[in-house]
Amino acid sequence: MARKTGSHAEITGPRIRAAALELFARHGYAAVSMRQIAAEVGVQAGALYTYTADKQSLLFELMRNHMEHLLGCWEEEPRPDDPLACLEAFTRFHIRYHLDRPDEVFISYMELRNLEPEHFAVIEGLRRRYERELEAILASGREDGCFTVPDTKVATMGLIAMLTGIGTWFRDTGRLSRFDVEQLYWDMVRGAVGVPDAAAGPGRAGSGGDAALSAAAE
Amino acid sequence: MARKTGSHAEITGPRIRAAALELFARHGYAAVSMRQIAAEVGVQAGALYTYTADKQSLLFELMRNHMEHLLGCWEEEPRPDDPLACLEAFTRFHIRYHLDRPDEVFISYMELRNLEPEHFAVIEGLRRRYERELEAILASGREDGCFTVPDTKVATMGLIAMLTGIGTWFRDTGRLSRFDVEQLYWDMVRGAVGVPDAAAGPGRAGSGGDAALSAAAE
Repeated sequence: MARKTGSHAEITGPRIRAAALELFARHGYAAVSMRQIAAEVGVQAGALYTYTADKQSLLFELMRNHMEHLLGCWEEEPRPDDPLACLEAFTRFHIRYHLDRPDEVFISYMELRNLEPEHFAVIEGLRRRYERELEAILASGREDGCFTVPDTKVATMGLIAMLTGIGTWFRDTGRLSRFDVEQLYWDMVRGAVGVPDAAAGPGRAGSGGDAALSAAAE
Repeated sequence: MARKTGSHAEITGPRIRAAALELFARHGYAAVSMRQIAAEVGVQAGALYTYTADKQSLLFELMRNHMEHLLGCWEEEPRPDDPLACLEAFTRFHIRYHLDRPDEVFISYMELRNLEPEHFAVIEGLRRRYERELEAILASGREDGCFTVPDTKVATMGLIAMLTGIGTWFRDTGRLSRFDVEQLYWDMVRGAVGVPDAAAGPGRAGSGGDAALSAAAE
């Protein structure tokens, strides 16, 4: 069996990860064999081991790449000094980033239980780093006196769960655009940290446009 | 092999479901065999088929029982007429119910992909029924002019994801009690629907108690 090295590795490595990602997301890590991943890529099962030590390494790599890429992208985002504007930037970034990567998000949450302890510790550390980014924004808004967030850690977990959950129901073919959804969730996030929309208020409730939005299924 | 019927079935059925629940939650549905479930219960693999048609039926039963029990328990909760009080009742009920059943919650979200289409349709229908309970509360608060919820469907999905997510991080041995967590999430829910806490406001930010809460890990 031919072993692929050099430039082949650069091509085959990503193809293996892409195949593993899709198979893990569809069937679950435990149900997928290295043989299936090889078949999906179109190589012999033995050839896979040129690129990766085992299935566990593949899962770990996928989850680590996802978290490191997420952190890297957030670092590149423009971040306003104003805590409210920065929270809005985080909210919109988080929604967009996660909606673009449903398989990675699904695996990152579902397959944590299948990581070996030392791998789990690394992923957990990266997740904490990301959570601390939001926590720092909440803390700065609280110091400024503009956010009401009695517990920044809890608020971080609550907001991230709310935003990530969009992936479980949003479809691009549905009644709402991504921008609609961003806007609706940003309103909820802002409210949750104690900053109601000055332009809105209960008076806005029940307007015709709202009824039209709510009438259709997602 | 002795087949168990009558009163034995009433005892063994729940034991089989409990074993399946634990094994599915720990290893994932796809990775668990009927043989393993039988071993956990202490019966022969063949005896399992007296109680259940197959592994798919077991998964479906677990998920359907979970949703029907959830709906039944919510129906028995006292529900105030006032939308804000009713939203608070729902919030606290949802948190308590889900924190008490981590395995059921985990399976209900993770194993949806493994349900056969006709089973999926039933579970999806039950989930919609539960979501409509919250949606109705949000709609009544919007009609009363007390909630700012431009889209009750989206707000429902956002709030349920936020509340259910508590299970991913909360531990009874952590720094916060369940009641602390309920209170913190209720504050966020109320804010998210546009009703800030009159007793709080940004002035409360940065008090000594808050700092103490935030210092420890979950």
